[in-house]
Amino acid sequence: MSATKTLARFALDCRYDQLSPRTVKEAHRTFLNWLGCAIGAARHPTAETAWRTVSRFAGPAQASVLGRRERTDMLHAALLNGITSHTFDFDDTHLKTIIHPAGPVASAILALAETQPVSGHDFINALVLGIEVECRIGNSVYPEHYDTGWHITGTTGVFGSAAACGRLLGLNEKQMIWALGIAATQASGLREMFGSMCKPFHPGNAARNGLMAALLAKENFTSSERGIEAPRGFAHVLSTKFDESEITRNLGKTFEIDLNTYKPFACGIVIHPSIDGCAQLTAEHGLKADDIARIDLGVHPLVLELTGKKTPRVGLEGKFSVYHASACAVIYGTAGEREFADAVVADAAVIALRDRVHAEVKPGVHEHQADIRVTLRDGRVLHRFVEKSIGSLENPLSDAQLEAKFRGMANEILPASQVDALIAACWKLGDSADAAAAIVPLAVIQSA
Amino acid sequence: MSATKTLARFALDCRYDQLSPRTVKEAHRTFLNWLGCAIGAARHPTAETAWRTVSRFAGPAQASVLGRRERTDMLHAALLNGITSHTFDFDDTHLKTIIHPAGPVASAILALAETQPVSGHDFINALVLGIEVECRIGNSVYPEHYDTGWHITGTTGVFGSAAACGRLLGLNEKQMIWALGIAATQASGLREMFGSMCKPFHPGNAARNGLMAALLAKENFTSSERGIEAPRGFAHVLSTKFDESEITRNLGKTFEIDLNTYKPFACGIVIHPSIDGCAQLTAEHGLKADDIARIDLGVHPLVLELTGKKTPRVGLEGKFSVYHASACAVIYGTAGEREFADAVVADAAVIALRDRVHAEVKPGVHEHQADIRVTLRDGRVLHRFVEKSIGSLENPLSDAQLEAKFRGMANEILPASQVDALIAACWKLGDSADAAAAIVPLAVIQSA
Repeated sequence: MSATKTLARFALDCRYDQLSPRTVKEAHRTFLNWLGCAIGAARHPTAETAWRTVSRFAGPAQASVLGRRERTDMLHAALLNGITSHTFDFDDTHLKTIIHPAGPVASAILALAETQPVSGHDFINALVLGIEVECRIGNSVYPEHYDTGWHITGTTGVFGSAAACGRLLGLNEKQMIWALGIAATQASGLREMFGSMCKPFHPGNAARNGLMAALLAKENFTSSERGIEAPRGFAHVLSTKFDESEITRNLGKTFEIDLNTYKPFACGIVIHPSIDGCAQLTAEHGLKADDIARIDLGVHPLVLELTGKKTPRVGLEGKFSVYHASACAVIYGTAGEREFADAVVADAAVIALRDRVHAEVKPGVHEHQADIRVTLRDGRVLHRFVEKSIGSLENPLSDAQLEAKFRGMANEILPASQVDALIAACWKLGDSADAAAAIVPLAVIQSA
Repeated sequence: MSATKTLARFALDCRYDQLSPRTVKEAHRTFLNWLGCAIGAARHPTAETAWRTVSRFAGPAQASVLGRRERTDMLHAALLNGITSHTFDFDDTHLKTIIHPAGPVASAILALAETQPVSGHDFINALVLGIEVECRIGNSVYPEHYDTGWHITGTTGVFGSAAACGRLLGLNEKQMIWALGIAATQASGLREMFGSMCKPFHPGNAARNGLMAALLAKENFTSSERGIEAPRGFAHVLSTKFDESEITRNLGKTFEIDLNTYKPFACGIVIHPSIDGCAQLTAEHGLKADDIARIDLGVHPLVLELTGKKTPRVGLEGKFSVYHASACAVIYGTAGEREFADAVVADAAVIALRDRVHAEVKPGVHEHQADIRVTLRDGRVLHRFVEKSIGSLENPLSDAQLEAKFRGMANEILPASQVDALIAACWKLGDSADAAAAIVPLAVIQSA
């Protein structure tokens, strides 16, 4: 059976009561992490710019823009929430493919769920199956697809959104196949856009276009029935590799969402081991910046390739500087969104320590590892080899750490008491009678 | 100077008073042909299905859906008119690239022009420059880009729409560069979708997404500034060929719209020489289907690749059957939209003749040629080598033929007197004070 048809059947057959407790739990963690990111970036210039544009032509107030007062039509709500959820580069990561799975799927189904009642069970199920479709398609074409220059979150996310929305819309098998085809022919997003507002535009577009695909298919708008695997379908046109077994093997038995991870730090994942190790040594030895003569980082080559900026000038550049991020780990104990503000990157104390951070490639050090030596002014040398950085699959954020991360973002936008209630609602999402009703009123700025 | 920046500057610098009379005339012919196609398909199931979907979430009544009563927001008007203009596969063709240039550009600028006054001069200028950007990008990556499996009208059309809308929105140079980048990262549309409703969805999407790109850029939504030519930009990710000189050489001096052509037959252009030749022989010799023992077509390889369906079952499949189309040329003397109705494709007499049509690749026969042998039951063999099919660049439709084609489509939807007035308005479009006001009221179903 073809990949497209196989995935369509799976999207229709997957059932909440067959998901393991672990998968259900991970879906809740995924949703919580996504929601915090989306709320946190609600006032970011990227969000403000997108909202100013969209409000010129948007439709009726069907769905909410998270972290804001405004409501808009479901397609544009999906777009905007998809944009904000990726704006901080702080959302979830499927490490096998570097897909950020939640953005395209959750942004679409939450907007849709504001227009029709969706139970917590159905919502969690749709989130799980949408991410499954998205990540399995990603597995089938990774890494060649990504290496070609495609932003894989955008290109595969549209399928996840289409499948999840299609399930909630009650598509039949033929319609679900069309939804995947209409998704395939909208797949887009270039890595060239990294560093601009277009990067978070990609998961937003994927959410919107996948929802559109499902809505069109519901009305019997036709597409190819082999949108993924045909010679001129998605996989062969957008990738030189296509391993169909990645789509079919153990489908419905294993779930990719079980492999989802959540960043503790608001920057590219390759710097995380360095930040983690510097923060650990600082905490354990009660270090201050002035105690430190120099920091030597032994890292994987990708760290210098992707994040080798020695003298970042603004916040966004700071995210691409292992030097800045490591200095923040000492001074602030972490590197969240706040530590990548323009003011922090320009802070004299941060710059002074940053200039004492040295990084070089150390053979044998993997991407999730770092070998750290901190030389103190009193002559002592502290050493830490980070085997598995915090936030990795083997050393995941705890629920409490996820909550702290959520508060760190959402408390900038919403009252703390509302944030507490929202966190509680997120953990109970699967058991809610109406998912959108349980979440959305707590996730927006409430009118006085 | 880079391709992106070069095209952005051109899109801002191109002036109506520097266009030759020939270019201005061809722009009017392009617009007339596009408008007839869009109106004619207004009640097609593809249009009805798209409208049912879109009306669920569309925005305020800013712009019109051609050939209908409804108004909707400008983005969805651009989408719907882009869809209908390509639904019959009867729109214009830039033969060098097989781009259908008008759909993405005209659909977007007409919708935009309903929200702000645009003079006829500015409208024609935007149409010309949008098509220039679209076709030059196409020239730079054709044929490898198309051969990979991309529907080039969708992938390059989004740039044309962005450039033309950006000009009408008064973007500055930086914003125009961003608009092209936001277009680049939305470029999509797979040839696998040919034969389904997704094929006309592509120019519709290109129109909508290009307009969206220009509106975002106007609000300073940023993208890469090298969206086209960067190593991970549009050209290198979506094509193995990129000849930047096709973008820069004689830019502003020659105009690709001068090379635009208009189909006499409502199907893929590669079948046109076969239809033309069969119709010629039939007319000259007064043939009936029963006179014919067999028809042998010697054709270019693309004919069989694109239109090799031997047993089409429905109208849309008939468009991808050189056998069906050639049979219609004998029986009906032409192959307009009516000859691709489901009933005609299923007609026993058509099927009987269709089964006597044989096609094979003949070396040396070009895309615009066909070598036709009709063997009669009385033993005679009639031969016709079609050197330049009707509708080709060297043998174009006259203005009168374009008008007749327009009437053939628009009279199905609008009153004949209104169609006459609309044709007159189209020829005077460039001199109108307000392009949308001159055209749109005559191009929709007027309320009683």
